[in-house]
Amino acid sequence: MAKKPLIQVALDSLDFGQTLRLASLAAPYVDIIEIGTPCLKCNGLPLVKAMRALFPDKLLFVDLKTMDAGKYEVTPFYDAGADFVSVLGVADLATIKGAIEAAKEHGKEVQIDLINVPNKSERAKEVVELGAQIVGVHTGIDQQLAGQTPFADLQEIVGLGLGVKVSVAGGIKPETVESVVKAGADIMVVGGAITGADDPAAAAKKIRDLVEQAAAS
Amino acid sequence: MAKKPLIQVALDSLDFGQTLRLASLAAPYVDIIEIGTPCLKCNGLPLVKAMRALFPDKLLFVDLKTMDAGKYEVTPFYDAGADFVSVLGVADLATIKGAIEAAKEHGKEVQIDLINVPNKSERAKEVVELGAQIVGVHTGIDQQLAGQTPFADLQEIVGLGLGVKVSVAGGIKPETVESVVKAGADIMVVGGAITGADDPAAAAKKIRDLVEQAAAS
Repeated sequence: MAKKPLIQVALDSLDFGQTLRLASLAAPYVDIIEIGTPCLKCNGLPLVKAMRALFPDKLLFVDLKTMDAGKYEVTPFYDAGADFVSVLGVADLATIKGAIEAAKEHGKEVQIDLINVPNKSERAKEVVELGAQIVGVHTGIDQQLAGQTPFADLQEIVGLGLGVKVSVAGGIKPETVESVVKAGADIMVVGGAITGADDPAAAAKKIRDLVEQAAAS
Repeated sequence: MAKKPLIQVALDSLDFGQTLRLASLAAPYVDIIEIGTPCLKCNGLPLVKAMRALFPDKLLFVDLKTMDAGKYEVTPFYDAGADFVSVLGVADLATIKGAIEAAKEHGKEVQIDLINVPNKSERAKEVVELGAQIVGVHTGIDQQLAGQTPFADLQEIVGLGLGVKVSVAGGIKPETVESVVKAGADIMVVGGAITGADDPAAAAKKIRDLVEQAAAS
């Protein structure tokens, strides 16, 4: 049996109400609700607080993609109820260190997003050494449009055996769920395949079913 | 006579009202109001709209530090009244290209922030080639705490003669105004030296006076 990853729905509408609605539709089938970066930048802390209040039993991830002022920037989001936030792997190590410090002070976690990091294995080892609890393998939206996928990087990072959670994001859809589960991801991020579906609840349920099947086989 | 740079006040309080108050105090003495990244992430578009309404005659910069989904992320900020926003120089070139496209469609500008870019000159040339109108030399807060300054990078980037505006940020204070003016910056960003002063209006006036003196000498 393969390890069963947590399912994270990434919400990237820019609209406050539509984001809550999509979260409600997906929530029964996912473990983690993600407020995506463009959505967060438009809506700020009020959306984080609303999401926390609406879904007290879900894990809440805020995709801050912090690049500077690590501790200062992430702290209000832990205070508002985020369980984990992201810091960019291309940031200065002092920024990453500050965010990890804030996470630990709150008894929470930080994810280092390896998007556009040139040497991903080396940076993953460095941030785990500093105390990061989650490493994120991530092919950006603009990179997906150019045909890139996160699967080779996922195998590389899982293969390091770092003893932390590995998250994977970048265009995951029903057809790729099985390979992600087999590759040993701890967190599988699904965005457009749920939020862009005609029936987001049915799409989320389908992802859930496929994860259960792949983990049981 | 040296070129007179525009003065940009960087607002990095996390509080909506306090940010507006600091902007009001500094506004008579500055050309550009900047909503800083942590401030923007906490307060979102409503703060951008409030700032636009309060200061119709100032240039408004939103420090998005966009890392992905360039066009999608920056568009609502131009729509809300930003005159320019930032995209990270460490982002994929497709992300930078998307943001530039959005800027041009709105008749506005985009600043590429060179924070943590390994080869700053090379990346600066690439983004100017793509159509970026402003290049930002930037020593981050966490890097300033480690004793770094932006002045050597500023000289390097101005020295390239790229024919675009060069912005400089990173702990600029009264003592360093003259050297920034002499180095030929087009935009000088001042944060804590104004917003952290006992009398922010007096501090902004002092920066304005020093810029006028340095440019006239």
